Amino acid sequence: MSKNLTTRSEDYSKWYNELVVKADLAENSGVRGCMVIKPYGYAIWEKMQGELDRKFKETGHQNAYFPLFVPKSMFEAEEKNAEGFAKECAIVTHYRLKNDPDKPGKLMVDPNAKLEEELIVRPTSEAIIWSTYKGWVQSYRDLPLLINQWANVVRWEMRTRLFLRTAEFLWQEGHTAHATREEAVEESEKMMNVYADFAENFMAIPVVRGIKTETERFAGAEETYCIEALMQDGKALQAGTSHFLGQNFAKAFDVKFANAEGTQEYVWGTSWGVSTRLMGALVMTHSDDKGLVLPPNLAPIQVVIVPIHKTDEQLDQITAEVNVLTAQLQKLGVSVKFDNRTTQKPGFKFAEWELKGVPVRIAIGPKDLENGTFEIARRDTATKEVVSKDGIANYISDLLEQIQKDLFNTALEYRNSHITKVENFEEFKSVLNDKGGFVSAHWDGTAATEERIQELTKATIRCIPLDAVEEVGTCVFTGNPSTKRVLFAKAY
Amino acid sequence: MSKNLTTRSEDYSKWYNELVVKADLAENSGVRGCMVIKPYGYAIWEKMQGELDRKFKETGHQNAYFPLFVPKSMFEAEEKNAEGFAKECAIVTHYRLKNDPDKPGKLMVDPNAKLEEELIVRPTSEAIIWSTYKGWVQSYRDLPLLINQWANVVRWEMRTRLFLRTAEFLWQEGHTAHATREEAVEESEKMMNVYADFAENFMAIPVVRGIKTETERFAGAEETYCIEALMQDGKALQAGTSHFLGQNFAKAFDVKFANAEGTQEYVWGTSWGVSTRLMGALVMTHSDDKGLVLPPNLAPIQVVIVPIHKTDEQLDQITAEVNVLTAQLQKLGVSVKFDNRTTQKPGFKFAEWELKGVPVRIAIGPKDLENGTFEIARRDTATKEVVSKDGIANYISDLLEQIQKDLFNTALEYRNSHITKVENFEEFKSVLNDKGGFVSAHWDGTAATEERIQELTKATIRCIPLDAVEEVGTCVFTGNPSTKRVLFAKAY
Repeated sequence: MSKNLTTRSEDYSKWYNELVVKADLAENSGVRGCMVIKPYGYAIWEKMQGELDRKFKETGHQNAYFPLFVPKSMFEAEEKNAEGFAKECAIVTHYRLKNDPDKPGKLMVDPNAKLEEELIVRPTSEAIIWSTYKGWVQSYRDLPLLINQWANVVRWEMRTRLFLRTAEFLWQEGHTAHATREEAVEESEKMMNVYADFAENFMAIPVVRGIKTETERFAGAEETYCIEALMQDGKALQAGTSHFLGQNFAKAFDVKFANAEGTQEYVWGTSWGVSTRLMGALVMTHSDDKGLVLPPNLAPIQVVIVPIHKTDEQLDQITAEVNVLTAQLQKLGVSVKFDNRTTQKPGFKFAEWELKGVPVRIAIGPKDLENGTFEIARRDTATKEVVSKDGIANYISDLLEQIQKDLFNTALEYRNSHITKVENFEEFKSVLNDKGGFVSAHWDGTAATEERIQELTKATIRCIPLDAVEEVGTCVFTGNPSTKRVLFAKAY
Repeated sequence: MSKNLTTRSEDYSKWYNELVVKADLAENSGVRGCMVIKPYGYAIWEKMQGELDRKFKETGHQNAYFPLFVPKSMFEAEEKNAEGFAKECAIVTHYRLKNDPDKPGKLMVDPNAKLEEELIVRPTSEAIIWSTYKGWVQSYRDLPLLINQWANVVRWEMRTRLFLRTAEFLWQEGHTAHATREEAVEESEKMMNVYADFAENFMAIPVVRGIKTETERFAGAEETYCIEALMQDGKALQAGTSHFLGQNFAKAFDVKFANAEGTQEYVWGTSWGVSTRLMGALVMTHSDDKGLVLPPNLAPIQVVIVPIHKTDEQLDQITAEVNVLTAQLQKLGVSVKFDNRTTQKPGFKFAEWELKGVPVRIAIGPKDLENGTFEIARRDTATKEVVSKDGIANYISDLLEQIQKDLFNTALEYRNSHITKVENFEEFKSVLNDKGGFVSAHWDGTAATEERIQELTKATIRCIPLDAVEEVGTCVFTGNPSTKRVLFAKAY
């Protein structure tokens, strides 16, 4: 608390790194690239999990759990998927340590305990799950399989950043199997929409729904749907993906079913996931130079109450008032913390809860006791007002709803004002560099152009928006004909 | 469904293995020693998680998440703990695969991607967590730290059995840090009691609370508290442990705090955990030759309704009645499934839900329509009765509570009748072999005697019960003096 945060305009990246640690969300661990998610950060993740899990179950999915490890031969069965993840996976080769004869008190890998086959720590679970589905699917009556897993996965990233890119991260991965292509496509789209709804209405993060280009597609998928968010620094962040897998994994793992006519067919698949990366998106959508700003839906503490007093007697009177209010608020489902620490002054407490993004702060002092009022401060707008204690609980409950909406609308306004149409490559570059955000441009549909643009500008095609309108145009780079605009951006 | 289960008297172990698979709880995976927890099994585990998590939070704990991997040098810092787990751990040595030049389409471990330091896949997280706590604790004001983690862990067991002993399993592990020995001991005991309460009042599994002998103690602990359950075959199962760690990990990881006087002291620790092993305990406490028997608290489906009809018109009428009842039951928080599949006959459905342990089955046929009744069958007692539809929802809700209690009492009776006091070694052996269960015997307190008894009988000391009374006695094996009886048993 003693040191101020780096401001966003000074150094956005540094601001983010500092904020994540200072607000007690996460920190780097003693294990390269792996993070510790601290209790305050984990409490936010739990709220995300709770809401997502509810949505998955509501749409007919069930949770299950599959092994952490994938034997190498299983891992390589779907070639494109294997190729996509081979360069960044942690590999278990031995199963025992022994005392190091040369170094008393130290251990060493026991060379006699080498695994017959190496095990890959799952970077994603298609391989292990489809190898299991083979045993679960015989007939069309066994379909669809609608399964989700909450798990940790490992991708050996060389450059890591808390939440955004870590060697180990937490996520959920849905894996479904269907009798027809249409059903699988429908499922992929449905889950993209579930994610979009979650991001917008629960996290207050506006997103663009779209499909990925072939270059950006998930390794092993026929189509990748995505939701793309825009961070405050003008960079995009992929917030969730949903893949139509075609019959790729069914073929790789020989998962067939007998249709109603008794003919054997390969199953159609999807997979979809969001991860602790969303924590990064949350921070970079709403927070400010004073710290976190949390949407009420995600705030572990929605209301903090700070007493302002000089005497113990005053504190007793305040406590009595606070107990009444707390009970009223809890009845309305609002989570409240009464910060009655005597070791810290009010100013210190204000700064701490500001840093931690508590949506509403209530202060109560001797004047308030006299007048029957509380002082209410909004974290997002930094506005204060003095409110009579009569009916204040409902007032606060409504205020939390209002804050949730306002945060979304503020983010939406920013996002909308940062989708810029450009007609040529000079404009493309200047918008990208000066303003940032999504650049809406015509593209000739080739991977070569996409790659060349990336080399020159670091911008990638974030998605082909689902609501893109057909229009006659020419590729911003090659001048070749194009029928749709796509969204480019620099991205996390 | 077509094949019957092996009966418990035929082969208890085979019965268990078959039941876990046939009831869709779990199955072996393509990865040695690792299981797939199927949706039905996972739904039961989720109910356990939900209740435990509530209890942990109620007692002031917060969830957090720590890395999956532990660098070797960190792993070996607490020597006893390292020694205890060194022989059964999965070790990551490389971080990349590459194309195998000799085998097109195959991958191999890239020898150029060897880690500088090997990473152990956590068998338990004391090391990584205490290395983190070093950064979290400076002063007595930072204590206590009351943290829990839901995670997967890996112990490279050679002989595995679904839920009971798997290379990877799911668990929660609490890790707390305190300013005083007394506080840490109190926490260890409190969490043992939380587990006991959970086992008895939520899972309907009676347990003995006790402490482990030095031989059976957790590696790195000063005291291990445990809850011990008794399975139907007379073997004991350790259902949960809570460890008082003393200052062992604080010393190994240099975790000190300044006390109120400003003096540096080492922190006192505890850790405690229960795992998916509890699923095995659940199966072996309540189930029978026809399949699972689930306590209502843990049943993903508490009530199944099977229509019995010859005509579509009858089915329509039945459905109308069922819809009314379902709404009433759901209002009371009872989970209901209406099994209106037309592809299966009632007898098949009865057998299926019996196998899956649904506590209450309701059947409704044309006669019931006429009489305004339902037929209610209890899974646990196999008793049936015909009940008028008036007030039936409350009747069922009460019945579920009754079943929960009855299951506990039945298990308690069995357990109590299987604690047998013996006064000499001949008796000890004959009780152990003929009757099984806990053998309550005097022991001279030495590890040598404990070991010798295990060699001769395969029985281990499950615990020194907390409620053991002081009495003058002589060791059942050596005849040396003893002041307390301990519980021996063969164990899972």
